[in-house]
Amino acid sequence: MHDNLDALLTALRAQFTDRLVTSDAVREHHGSGESHFPPAWPDAVVMVKSAQEVSEVLIACTKHGVPVIPFGAGSSIEGQIHAPHGGISIDLSAMDQIVSVHEADMDCTVQAGVTRQALNEHLRATGLFFPVDLGAHATLGGMAATRASGTTTVRYGSMRDLVLSMTVVMPNGEIIKTGTRARKSSAGYDLTRLMIGSEGTLGIITELTLRLFGIPEASQTAMCSFATIEDATQTVVMALQCGLALNRIELADTVQMRAINSHSKTGLPEQPTLWIELTGSTASVENDMAALESLAETALRFERAQSAEAAARLWRVRHDALYASRALRPGIKGISTDVCVPISKLPACISAILDIVATTDIQAPLVGHVGDGNFHLVLLYDPEDDAEAAQAHHINASLIEMAIDMGGTCTGEHGVGLGKKAYLPTELGPALDVMRQIKRALDPDNIMNPGKIFDL
Amino acid sequence: MHDNLDALLTALRAQFTDRLVTSDAVREHHGSGESHFPPAWPDAVVMVKSAQEVSEVLIACTKHGVPVIPFGAGSSIEGQIHAPHGGISIDLSAMDQIVSVHEADMDCTVQAGVTRQALNEHLRATGLFFPVDLGAHATLGGMAATRASGTTTVRYGSMRDLVLSMTVVMPNGEIIKTGTRARKSSAGYDLTRLMIGSEGTLGIITELTLRLFGIPEASQTAMCSFATIEDATQTVVMALQCGLALNRIELADTVQMRAINSHSKTGLPEQPTLWIELTGSTASVENDMAALESLAETALRFERAQSAEAAARLWRVRHDALYASRALRPGIKGISTDVCVPISKLPACISAILDIVATTDIQAPLVGHVGDGNFHLVLLYDPEDDAEAAQAHHINASLIEMAIDMGGTCTGEHGVGLGKKAYLPTELGPALDVMRQIKRALDPDNIMNPGKIFDL
Repeated sequence: MHDNLDALLTALRAQFTDRLVTSDAVREHHGSGESHFPPAWPDAVVMVKSAQEVSEVLIACTKHGVPVIPFGAGSSIEGQIHAPHGGISIDLSAMDQIVSVHEADMDCTVQAGVTRQALNEHLRATGLFFPVDLGAHATLGGMAATRASGTTTVRYGSMRDLVLSMTVVMPNGEIIKTGTRARKSSAGYDLTRLMIGSEGTLGIITELTLRLFGIPEASQTAMCSFATIEDATQTVVMALQCGLALNRIELADTVQMRAINSHSKTGLPEQPTLWIELTGSTASVENDMAALESLAETALRFERAQSAEAAARLWRVRHDALYASRALRPGIKGISTDVCVPISKLPACISAILDIVATTDIQAPLVGHVGDGNFHLVLLYDPEDDAEAAQAHHINASLIEMAIDMGGTCTGEHGVGLGKKAYLPTELGPALDVMRQIKRALDPDNIMNPGKIFDL
Repeated sequence: MHDNLDALLTALRAQFTDRLVTSDAVREHHGSGESHFPPAWPDAVVMVKSAQEVSEVLIACTKHGVPVIPFGAGSSIEGQIHAPHGGISIDLSAMDQIVSVHEADMDCTVQAGVTRQALNEHLRATGLFFPVDLGAHATLGGMAATRASGTTTVRYGSMRDLVLSMTVVMPNGEIIKTGTRARKSSAGYDLTRLMIGSEGTLGIITELTLRLFGIPEASQTAMCSFATIEDATQTVVMALQCGLALNRIELADTVQMRAINSHSKTGLPEQPTLWIELTGSTASVENDMAALESLAETALRFERAQSAEAAARLWRVRHDALYASRALRPGIKGISTDVCVPISKLPACISAILDIVATTDIQAPLVGHVGDGNFHLVLLYDPEDDAEAAQAHHINASLIEMAIDMGGTCTGEHGVGLGKKAYLPTELGPALDVMRQIKRALDPDNIMNPGKIFDL
């Protein structure tokens, strides 16, 4: 497909020697990820150690017209790391240095291959932490590239909000800094935010400067069961409006609770359930937990964790929800939906899609970041079974159409990759043309992760 | 200069009749703003009422190759509304409708000409508010276009953080929506953030969907005096790290405090001073105010406002600080500097620039949003006096150079306009080329507020 591939590989091998890998196992791993899409292998993988090396690879790939796909931990689930047009997978996982931590400024600078767990481990002695909390063991570069968020967005915001500046290598090999360490700036176009969520289609993130936060003095968790998802959501709306010190608000539906009980050997009520974590000063957490309990008058059960260990147990079953879901059909990965709607629409959206699910043979446990209006169904289907696959895709498409109609988005936090491309024209309309104009301007040869987000 | 101007004006007059204005008074007003730059008049002003009308004006201006400058309240201070190349000033102040308020979703949609005061007045009965709090009586469209922030950024973030979506008219007349009402999204490039801070150089914002917040139950204010700015800053760093419920943290230096006492007839200590506002639940505010008082062990005086009225009095003198500064030299506007540095660098930055000020004849009172590392000196000089002007510009340039060296930015919240263009190459390096590539792609004829942010 790429006439010049051999010449490119020869040039890269001369420079990178054994850090250029073309074995089947490595290529398959780098072209798979956690998505339900069949693997699409890159032609080779290069293990880089610096922005300068990334720049050299991009210059070589531009010269030879060969695609480039950035790779962090391989945990993306919409096919972001797939190589449908072949090319070079640039693996940044060896760029795992924490460059600096400025405690007084509450910021740090890390290379793109650092994981959020490694960063928080490193910060432990400082009393500071980086709050974006995903299910996946992801790299911070990958989290920025897909505009990831997770359970603490309701309090701290997503990657969009918490990156001060990045080093990005542009397709022409230019290494830019998108901003400074200043907390805020009005100095020109917001290239930091433009690169966040661009999924490697405009440039490759090699370094990030991140905001950090003090670990709160106190934390309390409650788990509450409701008769309906509407009751649960209404409680959350009131808690948000009162400005309670909410840190996490997670929802699971009845099917998900059954899956959890079965997987985690728990005896939790099999009803719509909220996990709520409050954090802050001891005084505010005490006060707000009491306020929450009186707000939650429709709760059938309001269990306040009596110790840090009890709270950790409650959160563990939430964290294991995806495994509990998959255990309903061993060997099946499933599609994870990712719509996000205005919170007032959440009960109607969930109720309507569960009605559609009920007309099919698909099991679809639900968990949600309900404070943000974002929820996931895991659609458990056998990809070898055409009828089941058609049902799963029908549920997915119906849900997305409904979410967009309700003023929401097809993807709250997983990104577009290959999986959501088909829905962007409906969601974005002519704004998609503006994105294409930007793509053409910054990557005129279309070598940067081609075929992702949109086609040209 | 624009051969086709007459033809354009004829076409616009036919459509807009008396909403196309060419009187000297209106053109001067629309080409002045609050900056220290001499006015640069547009050729005409058109008072628009809808995105559709903006689209029609842009199509006509593109056809005739005539520049377009958006105008909201005229409160920008870096020359953003000036028309150095002539052209059409598009006045959006009549687009002042509040389109919708979604209380349960805590968001609203407003036309670009709505001011933040008008919005908060409208919201009064809902218990919700929009928190970005500037000195100026600005429109929300203008605040987004310049990426404005103000006193509450430390708690709620800036315009960058609080806009969910916008309607923007592109140079070719296309009307796009940059996002949805979903709280978060990973659906493609972040056009919302790209347009925020683009100062009308990429498109014209006609509508904004904004996040709203519940009015906190309680609020308390303290005013504290310190022997040095370093002591004040150190107190703020500790308060930030402890995660106290800080809503505003404002700093004034000795010169500013003298100006305030003289202007506001107060007898406040003429020492570095912090105004600190805590908001949240009654319990957390009580708790955190006590924590703050014990943290602030270097404070020479810690005055806790004993009533809402007393707090309002303390904040009134802070709000009047600019007038107090200007009253030091009646008739003189002054340059307002706007650097933002990592907070740990703030004492060194302030101390070094005050040393430079002391070598000149310029009075330069200082106020700062110290939680963000952003501060303003008002450089009071007579623009007719070449020697004074040279000193003022020397202070401004020295401060910016120092801030960039310290990892900061030349502009925290006022934007670039004409005033900061000269400093962007140093601050942004090759990132400025990426901005130019985006500008050329989206505005190939360079009709959108040409000459602002950078030259092509």
